[in-house]
Amino acid sequence: MEIIRETDMLRTRVETLRKEGRRIGFVPTMGYFHEGHLNLMRMSVSDCDVTIVSNYINPTQFDRQDDLEAYPVDVERDRAMAEALDVDIMFYPENLYETDHKTWVRTEKLTDVLCGRSRPGHFRGVATIVCKLFNIVNPHVTYFGQKDAQQAAVIGQMIRDLNYDIRLVLSPIIREPDGLALSSRNVRLTPEHRKKAPVLYEKLQIIDKKILPDLSNKDELIQEAKKTIEAIPGVRVDYIDIRSWPDLEKPDHTSHRLLIAGAMFMGKVRLIDNIIKEL
Amino acid sequence: MEIIRETDMLRTRVETLRKEGRRIGFVPTMGYFHEGHLNLMRMSVSDCDVTIVSNYINPTQFDRQDDLEAYPVDVERDRAMAEALDVDIMFYPENLYETDHKTWVRTEKLTDVLCGRSRPGHFRGVATIVCKLFNIVNPHVTYFGQKDAQQAAVIGQMIRDLNYDIRLVLSPIIREPDGLALSSRNVRLTPEHRKKAPVLYEKLQIIDKKILPDLSNKDELIQEAKKTIEAIPGVRVDYIDIRSWPDLEKPDHTSHRLLIAGAMFMGKVRLIDNIIKEL
Repeated sequence: MEIIRETDMLRTRVETLRKEGRRIGFVPTMGYFHEGHLNLMRMSVSDCDVTIVSNYINPTQFDRQDDLEAYPVDVERDRAMAEALDVDIMFYPENLYETDHKTWVRTEKLTDVLCGRSRPGHFRGVATIVCKLFNIVNPHVTYFGQKDAQQAAVIGQMIRDLNYDIRLVLSPIIREPDGLALSSRNVRLTPEHRKKAPVLYEKLQIIDKKILPDLSNKDELIQEAKKTIEAIPGVRVDYIDIRSWPDLEKPDHTSHRLLIAGAMFMGKVRLIDNIIKEL
Repeated sequence: MEIIRETDMLRTRVETLRKEGRRIGFVPTMGYFHEGHLNLMRMSVSDCDVTIVSNYINPTQFDRQDDLEAYPVDVERDRAMAEALDVDIMFYPENLYETDHKTWVRTEKLTDVLCGRSRPGHFRGVATIVCKLFNIVNPHVTYFGQKDAQQAAVIGQMIRDLNYDIRLVLSPIIREPDGLALSSRNVRLTPEHRKKAPVLYEKLQIIDKKILPDLSNKDELIQEAKKTIEAIPGVRVDYIDIRSWPDLEKPDHTSHRLLIAGAMFMGKVRLIDNIIKEL
């Protein structure tokens, strides 16, 4: 596996690959790989001629400085894991922003709900860095995890609205044996919180099972889930919500798919999870 | 000259051209060509292997509905003019926005001054459509006119901030014999206003000549220019301003170049002009 740190060097490599007619798959990450990331890489390696993984902690998508500073890093481990999967190139840039960066990509409406409401600027940072990476990597296909469902919805909308010729592939959520969705932030949980962390997914599953076709028991189910989760010491629910997928509107009888999504703080660690339900 | 109306067809053409190693020049326009546009096309035809001109009135950059509706159109004339210059492809799409378009590109600070201040949303519309066109046309070089100096500054910043691998070339302002900068909007002036219209450039030239190295007479010169221009019946100055170029900050002793810029309304027609002064 090749490690490329310079933007211009990556561009030159990609240009050659495209001229040769190779199909390029791109997995954008912030490093500290877990099975969720590896699954995205496996999908790309199996679908595409060349797989490029970016490994860059994007400062502009963090709404809290302490979260950015606590974000785990282990590039040597990442390198070995990607290499073992036959990833072709790891793009590992030092910094992607000029000091007087002024341009931002914002996807409206989609970002006013769920995580967007409690993380001001987060999705603006995500859309902007992904736009930058698309312009450097110039891929045919890009892989995102369903765990960050709203992020995938935003990027899908951005791809369409800004006429990127890129196919977005969503990969399913990878879970621990007890149901907890894999996340780079899981290592920061206390042992007690780690033990209780699967509660979020359990409650989303209950909503998935009990929700009525007319959604008339929606608020009741959400309240019930919140109450159980917040009974755990040191835990606060950020939101539990049901939205149409992928446009994240209030669901109604015209919705074909629902996103049942939740976010909770266990101490300072924020965890998210979701279920996409076909109607 | 080939006329392409479908986005996908243009993509396919460009992909083939790039695989052949052809250098692609791109001139984005809103049609109704004048010598200013033709000059951009000539530069591209002379520099590049293939020249693509887009001809699309972008609705999202108009801050006034009446201005959009009054925008002149003559595609047959445009076609003949571009063909005579050996333009290779005219991209003439019907519509480039989905009904639920939600994604916007905004370049901050640069757009808070000059035309940005009096045309809310204008540069957001410009940056967004240029971003979309770049993603469709995928050019090596793009040509913009100095007449829309702030637009060129915004696009230059966007290219850098979003990592587009595109060189921006600025073409000088083309003028009528009496000094009036060419504009598609000039045809909408009354005969009286047309006669007086060169006053804006005359006043900018006086500022260019009289401005002191420490800029201490800046406000005085601007006031003087405004007074003379607004003495013409039916004419209102939108702004006359001096900024550093191309970052559009308040100029100081560190500035290497100045943008001396003005905008005025003659009746309902808004005209702009500028001079870039090397220090």
